[in-house]
Amino acid sequence: MKIIDIIENKKKGKELTEQEIKFFIDGIMAGSIEDYQTSALLMAIYFNGMTIDETTWLTKYMVESGEILDLSDISNDIIDKHSTGGVGDKITLMFLPLAAAAGLYTAKLSGRGLGHTGGTIDKLESIPNFRTDLSIDEFKSKVKSNRTAIAAQTLSLAPADGKLYALRDVTSTVDIIPLIASSVVSKKIASGANHIILDVKYGSGAFLKTPEEAQKLSEIMVEVGKRLNRNICAVISSMDQPLGRAVGNSVEIQEVIEFLKGNMEPDLKEITYTLLNKAFEKTGKFSTKEESYNYLDELISSGKALEKFREIIDSQNGNSEVLDDYTKLPQASIKYEVKSNKDGFVKNIDALKIAKACKNLGAGREKKSDSIDYSAGIYLTQKYSEPVKEGETIAVIYTNKQEAIKDAEMLIKEAFDIAEDEQKEISLIYKIIN
Amino acid sequence: MKIIDIIENKKKGKELTEQEIKFFIDGIMAGSIEDYQTSALLMAIYFNGMTIDETTWLTKYMVESGEILDLSDISNDIIDKHSTGGVGDKITLMFLPLAAAAGLYTAKLSGRGLGHTGGTIDKLESIPNFRTDLSIDEFKSKVKSNRTAIAAQTLSLAPADGKLYALRDVTSTVDIIPLIASSVVSKKIASGANHIILDVKYGSGAFLKTPEEAQKLSEIMVEVGKRLNRNICAVISSMDQPLGRAVGNSVEIQEVIEFLKGNMEPDLKEITYTLLNKAFEKTGKFSTKEESYNYLDELISSGKALEKFREIIDSQNGNSEVLDDYTKLPQASIKYEVKSNKDGFVKNIDALKIAKACKNLGAGREKKSDSIDYSAGIYLTQKYSEPVKEGETIAVIYTNKQEAIKDAEMLIKEAFDIAEDEQKEISLIYKIIN
Repeated sequence: MKIIDIIENKKKGKELTEQEIKFFIDGIMAGSIEDYQTSALLMAIYFNGMTIDETTWLTKYMVESGEILDLSDISNDIIDKHSTGGVGDKITLMFLPLAAAAGLYTAKLSGRGLGHTGGTIDKLESIPNFRTDLSIDEFKSKVKSNRTAIAAQTLSLAPADGKLYALRDVTSTVDIIPLIASSVVSKKIASGANHIILDVKYGSGAFLKTPEEAQKLSEIMVEVGKRLNRNICAVISSMDQPLGRAVGNSVEIQEVIEFLKGNMEPDLKEITYTLLNKAFEKTGKFSTKEESYNYLDELISSGKALEKFREIIDSQNGNSEVLDDYTKLPQASIKYEVKSNKDGFVKNIDALKIAKACKNLGAGREKKSDSIDYSAGIYLTQKYSEPVKEGETIAVIYTNKQEAIKDAEMLIKEAFDIAEDEQKEISLIYKIIN
Repeated sequence: MKIIDIIENKKKGKELTEQEIKFFIDGIMAGSIEDYQTSALLMAIYFNGMTIDETTWLTKYMVESGEILDLSDISNDIIDKHSTGGVGDKITLMFLPLAAAAGLYTAKLSGRGLGHTGGTIDKLESIPNFRTDLSIDEFKSKVKSNRTAIAAQTLSLAPADGKLYALRDVTSTVDIIPLIASSVVSKKIASGANHIILDVKYGSGAFLKTPEEAQKLSEIMVEVGKRLNRNICAVISSMDQPLGRAVGNSVEIQEVIEFLKGNMEPDLKEITYTLLNKAFEKTGKFSTKEESYNYLDELISSGKALEKFREIIDSQNGNSEVLDDYTKLPQASIKYEVKSNKDGFVKNIDALKIAKACKNLGAGREKKSDSIDYSAGIYLTQKYSEPVKEGETIAVIYTNKQEAIKDAEMLIKEAFDIAEDEQKEISLIYKIIN
């Protein structure tokens, strides 16, 4: 078998065989296939796609290219929740304590990620002393004792995916649906969970721009996951506007704590409850949405969810005083209010522009080695459908970079689309793929 | 400007700008663009093509990536003749002495090339002591004094093309018409001739399989050449069957000498005369085919063309006794006759199969470092439309490899399609693109 023939086959639109895909992944790992051959194949895949069979084989051999976490001695009902990424996306941080308080097992390995704001790991690290660099044994023992743990993905899970991704990033071959599907699903499978709940975003603040693309990706991921014996589903939702009101790192942690205290932003509640309802369905805890939602309300109002979050923070060495005293979280030296230019109702807040503003304020990173200002961020005092008056505050900027404020203010003003008419209520959820 | 944006633009089907193409070629030469980025771009070009503007810019900057031979102190009417390559293609070796005998200037730089049989340079080197490693000064002074010279292309002409080609060869991106066009035309332009006559082949023994592909390539090459101020044309002809009767190296030299002595195979005559007629047209020597052909007949019958070939061989240090005594050419130790299995008329001789047989006999090379057996080859005693009888010789194998004969015989028998009916006369020329 020769890689040039595999490239030629894909170029000519043929379906690759399982043997060819295994040869490709083995060759990447062994270093016997050159990067320039891999990138030519990736570009041919961009144009000619991959079938579900090919995508499944690719996923399978990417999983087998590295370690596979074995959590079977803890439970056979372990849940992993994964988001394709969005602006103000702090859902994991509400999902985990609620799921654990409900008696479910979750095990969450998360990438540090690049982007306009930090990833979930970065957000947690804005809690003083919070440890995410758990060893495998620590991670497993915490899942066992607390029913949940969250750690930075430092293990060598699906390393072939890592190699492929590094190359895709510099050859304009990131936006290939079957490769995105393989990348996500291979890492989830290698992480050892039996139940996988995918939170797939589309819109201005997401990687995929349309619901149709998100649906296509979701269908492929769910089908591949099933073929590889996982109980998997995907919830597709809009990321045209930021999730919640806080975008950044420590400002998002504060919003999470408020949520667990019962001050739930409706959009955060919609997504979090929908995902947990799927988790209850999968593990057989509840079968109706009503039961699930009532139970979740009870976990919030009783304080059980908040206490679980305290337990997680304590267990991972963080300072859980932040739950009661937000000044223990990193504080920005500058707080700047952005005012509305006109009267009306918020029709849209462009998530991508808010994200860009946040990055300029110091909340994100471009290279893995960049440091993050945990205190930087934006708080949206007005959200979708809410009335605003000229001169009234629509958002608050938190930063330590005085020089970054002007551009951020401009981006925020651009992000806000204020209409004369009242706006209809909208649901974020587009579809659920089971 | 960033290469990843250029890849993305081509991926999305946009026309690249002149600046982008210059950036790309400059980056290849400077080493600032990685091979894996180049190969991704090449594959995107395979799928989305290049416009004439893009192809012209690519050609222009490939030319400018290296030395450009200046022959203007010799003449402003210097001709270069280039074939896209075929089986038994010895046309250059008849073209050059005829053109020079006619008083035209030709300057021929030729690649050593990979293939089933040697390239023109290899064929010439089967003449004992023939030197093809001329310095630029030697090459120019010979063109000046003899009106022609032929040298191995060791100069750094269009080096960007060399780099691109090396990568295309290992990433399944060779078969991209605009890149083939740029590759051919850039080298011809850098070689310094004003008039370029392209001999474009299609069919079993050629790189392009159909006349339509050959026409498309020819049209692009001619248009690009014109835009870069060259007087260029392309003669498109069939390469379904080998050209002439001899395929190999020294056996082809012998056929060339016979041709110049007046024993002209009709197919060799058709192509050679057509190309020379174009050369006469371009330089204004003759304007009708009749005048040209009569003149060429006279150059042959008077012995002037043969004497010119002797002059070339002498000038480049070769042993010109080969013109009178073929035993001075390398001789194979084994001569084996292949017999027909049936009666009939030759309907077709598959050029590719004959070429493969030749390679197995030792006449070609796979890697640049492989050595060639100059004496190995095949002589077709029967050709298209000629009658054959069962048991009669149809081809003679020349080799030093006893063990290669069986397979070669099988390939030759497979190559011969012998029909019951008499065959019509055919013309090899498909079209001429001016």
